[in-house]
Amino acid sequence: MHAYRSHTCAALTAANVGETVRLSGWVHRVRDHGGVLFIDLRDHYGVTQVLCDGDSAAFAELEKVRSEWCIRIDGTVKARDADLVNPKLPTGEIEVYVRELEVLGRAEELPLMVFGDQEYPEETRLRYRYLDLRREAMQANMTLRSDVVASMRRRMWDKGFREYQTPIITASSPEGARDFLVPSRLHPGRFYALPQAPQQFKQLIMVSGFDKYFQIAPCFRDEDPRADRSPTDFYQLDLEMSFVTQQDVFDTIAPVLAGVFQEFGGGRKVDAPQDWPQIAYADAAKWYGTDKPDLRNPIRMQDCSEHFRGSGFAIFAKLLEQEGTEIRAIPAPTGGSRKFCDRMNAFAQKEGLPGMGYIFWRPKGDFKKWEPLYQLLKASQAGEPFDSEAFEQKLKSEAAESEKEASETIAELLRSGEVGRAKLLFEGTFGSHEAAGPLAKNIGPERTEAIRQQLGLGVGDAAFFLGGKPKSFEKVAGKARDVIGAELGLTETDRFAFAWIVDFPIYERDEETGEIDFEHNPFSMPQGGMEALNGDPMAVRGYQYDLACNGYELVSGAIRNHKPEIMLKAFELAGYGADEVKARFGALFNAFHYGAPPHGGCAAGIDRIVMLLADEANIREVMMFPMNQRAEDLMMQAPSEPSSDQLMELGLRVIPQD
Amino acid sequence: MHAYRSHTCAALTAANVGETVRLSGWVHRVRDHGGVLFIDLRDHYGVTQVLCDGDSAAFAELEKVRSEWCIRIDGTVKARDADLVNPKLPTGEIEVYVRELEVLGRAEELPLMVFGDQEYPEETRLRYRYLDLRREAMQANMTLRSDVVASMRRRMWDKGFREYQTPIITASSPEGARDFLVPSRLHPGRFYALPQAPQQFKQLIMVSGFDKYFQIAPCFRDEDPRADRSPTDFYQLDLEMSFVTQQDVFDTIAPVLAGVFQEFGGGRKVDAPQDWPQIAYADAAKWYGTDKPDLRNPIRMQDCSEHFRGSGFAIFAKLLEQEGTEIRAIPAPTGGSRKFCDRMNAFAQKEGLPGMGYIFWRPKGDFKKWEPLYQLLKASQAGEPFDSEAFEQKLKSEAAESEKEASETIAELLRSGEVGRAKLLFEGTFGSHEAAGPLAKNIGPERTEAIRQQLGLGVGDAAFFLGGKPKSFEKVAGKARDVIGAELGLTETDRFAFAWIVDFPIYERDEETGEIDFEHNPFSMPQGGMEALNGDPMAVRGYQYDLACNGYELVSGAIRNHKPEIMLKAFELAGYGADEVKARFGALFNAFHYGAPPHGGCAAGIDRIVMLLADEANIREVMMFPMNQRAEDLMMQAPSEPSSDQLMELGLRVIPQD
Repeated sequence: MHAYRSHTCAALTAANVGETVRLSGWVHRVRDHGGVLFIDLRDHYGVTQVLCDGDSAAFAELEKVRSEWCIRIDGTVKARDADLVNPKLPTGEIEVYVRELEVLGRAEELPLMVFGDQEYPEETRLRYRYLDLRREAMQANMTLRSDVVASMRRRMWDKGFREYQTPIITASSPEGARDFLVPSRLHPGRFYALPQAPQQFKQLIMVSGFDKYFQIAPCFRDEDPRADRSPTDFYQLDLEMSFVTQQDVFDTIAPVLAGVFQEFGGGRKVDAPQDWPQIAYADAAKWYGTDKPDLRNPIRMQDCSEHFRGSGFAIFAKLLEQEGTEIRAIPAPTGGSRKFCDRMNAFAQKEGLPGMGYIFWRPKGDFKKWEPLYQLLKASQAGEPFDSEAFEQKLKSEAAESEKEASETIAELLRSGEVGRAKLLFEGTFGSHEAAGPLAKNIGPERTEAIRQQLGLGVGDAAFFLGGKPKSFEKVAGKARDVIGAELGLTETDRFAFAWIVDFPIYERDEETGEIDFEHNPFSMPQGGMEALNGDPMAVRGYQYDLACNGYELVSGAIRNHKPEIMLKAFELAGYGADEVKARFGALFNAFHYGAPPHGGCAAGIDRIVMLLADEANIREVMMFPMNQRAEDLMMQAPSEPSSDQLMELGLRVIPQD
Repeated sequence: MHAYRSHTCAALTAANVGETVRLSGWVHRVRDHGGVLFIDLRDHYGVTQVLCDGDSAAFAELEKVRSEWCIRIDGTVKARDADLVNPKLPTGEIEVYVRELEVLGRAEELPLMVFGDQEYPEETRLRYRYLDLRREAMQANMTLRSDVVASMRRRMWDKGFREYQTPIITASSPEGARDFLVPSRLHPGRFYALPQAPQQFKQLIMVSGFDKYFQIAPCFRDEDPRADRSPTDFYQLDLEMSFVTQQDVFDTIAPVLAGVFQEFGGGRKVDAPQDWPQIAYADAAKWYGTDKPDLRNPIRMQDCSEHFRGSGFAIFAKLLEQEGTEIRAIPAPTGGSRKFCDRMNAFAQKEGLPGMGYIFWRPKGDFKKWEPLYQLLKASQAGEPFDSEAFEQKLKSEAAESEKEASETIAELLRSGEVGRAKLLFEGTFGSHEAAGPLAKNIGPERTEAIRQQLGLGVGDAAFFLGGKPKSFEKVAGKARDVIGAELGLTETDRFAFAWIVDFPIYERDEETGEIDFEHNPFSMPQGGMEALNGDPMAVRGYQYDLACNGYELVSGAIRNHKPEIMLKAFELAGYGADEVKARFGALFNAFHYGAPPHGGCAAGIDRIVMLLADEANIREVMMFPMNQRAEDLMMQAPSEPSSDQLMELGLRVIPQD
């Protein structure tokens, strides 16, 4: 028999009854049932119940074992009594009667229990990570991560990509974040850097003629701590292709990601790639207040400036007299109560705004009678199941003689699926609503009704309004949209909703200095090429894109600027001279002088994807050995003080800190 | 049509004749055949011949293109004339008549030609790596590397392993080489280190209960330059398993590697895993003079001390009076000429030894007549085809009356396949040989004959002798064995020969100080456990192993010491107190107190494997963007001087070098 095991702890079934077996694993739980010891023996694969009584030679030894000891047992497989069978456990039909025991590894008193769901401080979990990782949820998360990465790899190979490894000890990157530096011993005083991303290398691989590259690539950024990112490194699925357009890149990565989300999403709905909208960066800001919108939330913001211009609501009316200002509405279907509106107003104040104006619509007069039917109509419009026959009956029985004809038309519209028109006619016929809230009072009923019609709202709904220069309120507006969607239950859970964000501007202008700098990646090809660069820089859009999913940026990429003359011009507009381009991006710039192909690609954040799939909000739940938020490894004791020999060899001196 | 290509440059065949196509790629070669331009257009996938004459609107533009310009052409597929078909090219049946041309990327004058086999200095190749990589051999090497890694991954998954990523920014490693340090910005004066190997992490993963881990892992060592290693980093296939014995690890990795060598070996013979010998470390030294023997070479050294003790060869006889000395013979079948022996003697002198004694055996008297038959026998013994019927006829026709009976017996032995005994009887019957060389004269015929019989040599063979303490000559002896095997054509080429080297000693004693230190990895489990450590430390062997292939170490591994008390004792013997163990290997040592499973594993050098498969001697031929031997990246300009801001943030000052 094998020295340690004939089976894993997940392998034995009723078919093995009577066999002599050997198992190794950890003592998950011990129960003493009056002279009979029951132990749940656990390994990576599962749990098997083993037991022992005084008749066994191993009894005295087995009495000594404690939680998390690692042991090996020999024993006989027995069928459990029918009423003791555990159908939830693959090994639930059997148990093993222990005849021999070997302690493979004792355990001291545990700082953290593996069995059970007790919560522990993060410091404890990271210091004793090897115990924390034994817990069921962590085993599942690590396994998931491993499987996700393998699935990505398989899918990329299936698409004709090869994985090429790029250097980890290299030169300072131009990605714009802070580099980790590595002092050189052979060249004292000079430093390598860890790559912020393989950006330059993957472009050089294209110039080298490899056509399709991918890599599960570690990326290093010396960033200030945040819960949802590692303070040192992260992994991305990095890819690059030659001779492609933006759409080719989309068509490549979208099925890979959709496939991964399908495979590991646990049945949650995954939008099909052909349904992923392509939203211009400017529209995303307008509609969702962010370039990573959560499209599970159906709310789309709208410009309502015209309704407020010269209106009785002085604050907005005055605001609109300044150039570049706008009034943005966040429609909030089903949010039509003063309580909810006040809560959202308070939210905006907490976020640093003076508040959010709002209007909500409540039933008016005898509309109370009609409201149940009206809510059914609204629900139907939102896609919920709708019994049109029952609706029609009820409608006709309630309608006065003068309302008969309209009722008939409403019914007909419903039968032909025109819910929107049916609802409008319903509102017109039965005099549905009155608008409430201070804003409505100030601008008067006509403007209020025009707003209601533009936003497609009705009784029981609300709308919130933010005004000013879009940059000043868009971020809060986006947050408000998230909160409204979540609180009103409008945001679908159990779904992964994707959207391509496209047409990023190449440049942004510093509000204060008026200087132009790159908005995003300086390596993107401007749409329209050299010609566009000779026009208004602020109007130039790039072949640059992000993929948003459920409010997160999952992917970022671009078609690259592979023409040295356009590259120089693009940098010149941002204030960088040719010398600086050559000094900072010399390798790439030089390479573009030797027959560079058009190329582009993207990178997908692996940690983020695994977090979404595992439904975890903290990146440390999906990494094997993460740093804490102070960028320390508590288990390995890093960083630590170097020896003076090491510093001497590197030609470095540490400046004493005060 | 797609913006850049309807087909790759390897796709078009006679089936496409008449189609309008679009191709993109690089101008591999231009030929001007009197008004007709022929261009070999190359992409990652292949080459397509395109052509153009004055009738095409593109002609004037196409005349301007030069080697390595990246272009896009539109044209019509035409069948080549039968006598112009190139059967070596997948696209050799067709050519494309160019109607439109777009220059995608111009090329300046080339510092390095892609077309052709011209050699360039390494500096040029590394500085313009993106051109160097376009060359056919480099494309093949990079593709091979990518495919090898993918194959390893697939094979590991098939064996039930999962890949888990371990930290790259971490703590100083205990592997013994020099760490690359990474200064911490958040903790000025403290440093991280890049891992020399994921050794501690993979063991912690086992303690965490994951059972089977692997990783294609980057490893970082700040090593002094050498042609066959990278000065900064290398990749290994790293694996670890719980609840296993040494043999389990062999049974896991051997088929993975054998499979990879089969898959990518290009038809070279690959020894089957069940035939890989397990050779004790001590035997490897004795037989091959190295712990990474090349078993394609059949020569095995032998101890011949007894034949020289008290003999007339005073140098050896006197040497043997000192303790711990030995005379080692290197048999050299077919090396029996004075010229060869003198050359080998000179080789030994060049390696710093006083020389190598030798004996060679030449035919004596009328043995000349028998020599052809004798050589046939020897060849047969070496496994070459042998026509025993022809041999028997010739033998009987040449034999005198007195030799008839012996001839009959020789023939019978041969018929029953006993070639060795047949050869011995042949030698005894026909008085075969005389020994030559000064050594033979000094020790006399009896001792010389005893040596010949021990080594199984005969006419036309030689043997070389080295004496002293084994450590003083073994390395040169091993080299001599390599040279002899290669020069005499004994070493099989086109074969991958593997051997496990086992039973490494745990400790070595410093010859000068007498102090004991670890011979290899301090984390290996000593064979015999605590009991063995309580005996003679120098006699303790570890569950530690290497895999040798064709003279290189491909794999190294061990069953780990997972018991804290045995770990402490093992370190104590090497002079490390408990405090030092806790300080240097705290994470692992602590973890072993919480139910550690028995575990073991190994790591296989990926760069080395790809080098063997690609038949390259320089690691830079199998890496995409290698450093040069001074650890500089000439293309990226690394390492470079940091900015003073960067140094300030890290709290470091560079010590001015004189």
